[in-house]
Amino acid sequence: MRLSELSERSGVSTATIKYYLRERLLPAGARVTATQADYDEGHLRRLRLVRALLQVGRLPVATAREVLAHVDDASLGRTIRLGASLWALPHGPEPDEEAPETATARAEVARLFTELGWTTALELGELSPAHRSLVASLATLVRLGYPCDTAYLAQQARLMRKMAVQDLDALEEYPTEDEQVEAAVASAVLYEPLLASLRRLAQAEESVQRYGIG
Amino acid sequence: MRLSELSERSGVSTATIKYYLRERLLPAGARVTATQADYDEGHLRRLRLVRALLQVGRLPVATAREVLAHVDDASLGRTIRLGASLWALPHGPEPDEEAPETATARAEVARLFTELGWTTALELGELSPAHRSLVASLATLVRLGYPCDTAYLAQQARLMRKMAVQDLDALEEYPTEDEQVEAAVASAVLYEPLLASLRRLAQAEESVQRYGIG
Repeated sequence: MRLSELSERSGVSTATIKYYLRERLLPAGARVTATQADYDEGHLRRLRLVRALLQVGRLPVATAREVLAHVDDASLGRTIRLGASLWALPHGPEPDEEAPETATARAEVARLFTELGWTTALELGELSPAHRSLVASLATLVRLGYPCDTAYLAQQARLMRKMAVQDLDALEEYPTEDEQVEAAVASAVLYEPLLASLRRLAQAEESVQRYGIG
Repeated sequence: MRLSELSERSGVSTATIKYYLRERLLPAGARVTATQADYDEGHLRRLRLVRALLQVGRLPVATAREVLAHVDDASLGRTIRLGASLWALPHGPEPDEEAPETATARAEVARLFTELGWTTALELGELSPAHRSLVASLATLVRLGYPCDTAYLAQQARLMRKMAVQDLDALEEYPTEDEQVEAAVASAVLYEPLLASLRRLAQAEESVQRYGIG
């Protein structure tokens, strides 16, 4: 399709599409003549993902470009490709190595993953930004004087694992690995706020069931 | 205890404690002499909560004061008191009434809650900020061209409900309703980043189990 059709079908202005092309967030179309290029369904999907990253995830352009570079790297194995793409997304706080609570949190996180049998988390350790953020958030909890309830965290983690099963089942409905990786990145950005809302609504529902509305 | 002991036990400087007292984030101690006041365990707990709201939740002081006013309002029923405290916390995006996708999202959310049998969510509707944010996030998803998979959302919501059961069970271990409400607010602020990290780690774990590390 021409640029004008890509614009119409995506709802993104041609000026914005040209900007994405210049910033290498969107790959160039197939050259047809000196002034015309041809775009396909892959461009349409990528445009959708770029908007999710920039508008919902509020990623800086350079970060979005880095994420997309991993998404596009088909030389990587599937897990590594997915992992690298997600690791390049913004994540939570970094552990403060000066804080004495960091060591406590680190030990609790290791105990948690051992109890859960999460061998990948144990092996990758703090190479993973999510692992580092978990340590940092837990250290803050301890520093503020809140109890670190590993048993409760383990329960929650087990349900999160069940949610991850559903997440991957949903991804596998996409026909190609390219599309699955794109969808995984989009879902990380789009579903986080959605699940935070669902969590509060689920708590309200449970609270009314237990204590009534009064 | 004296101000100096409160400072020592909480790890918060006396200057900061005085600032919280001036801003009415911390209730005044019981007056002992013209220049001395007596603080108790409630002050220690409140100080911990104030730091969670300001440092982790990054709430403006006026918002924190509003949240705490609801936390302290023992005239409210338990559910309303808890709800009002949580509703005063910052939440996700507001629905854009100009966007045509908002009506679609609203219908999907109503269908979701009907399917789940979440009667409180249906009755309160968009009085609840979490409900509004859910509509807004879903509308964005649709606007960007992503499919709105209500069946998948319902599955995730059912697991979220199980997490809410664990959340309320954990809260009920606190001996008084005052402490339970305080802990619920703290947990909303402290656990959201933690669960986001756990979600990514659970996905990585599941991905390696399915596809190997290669």
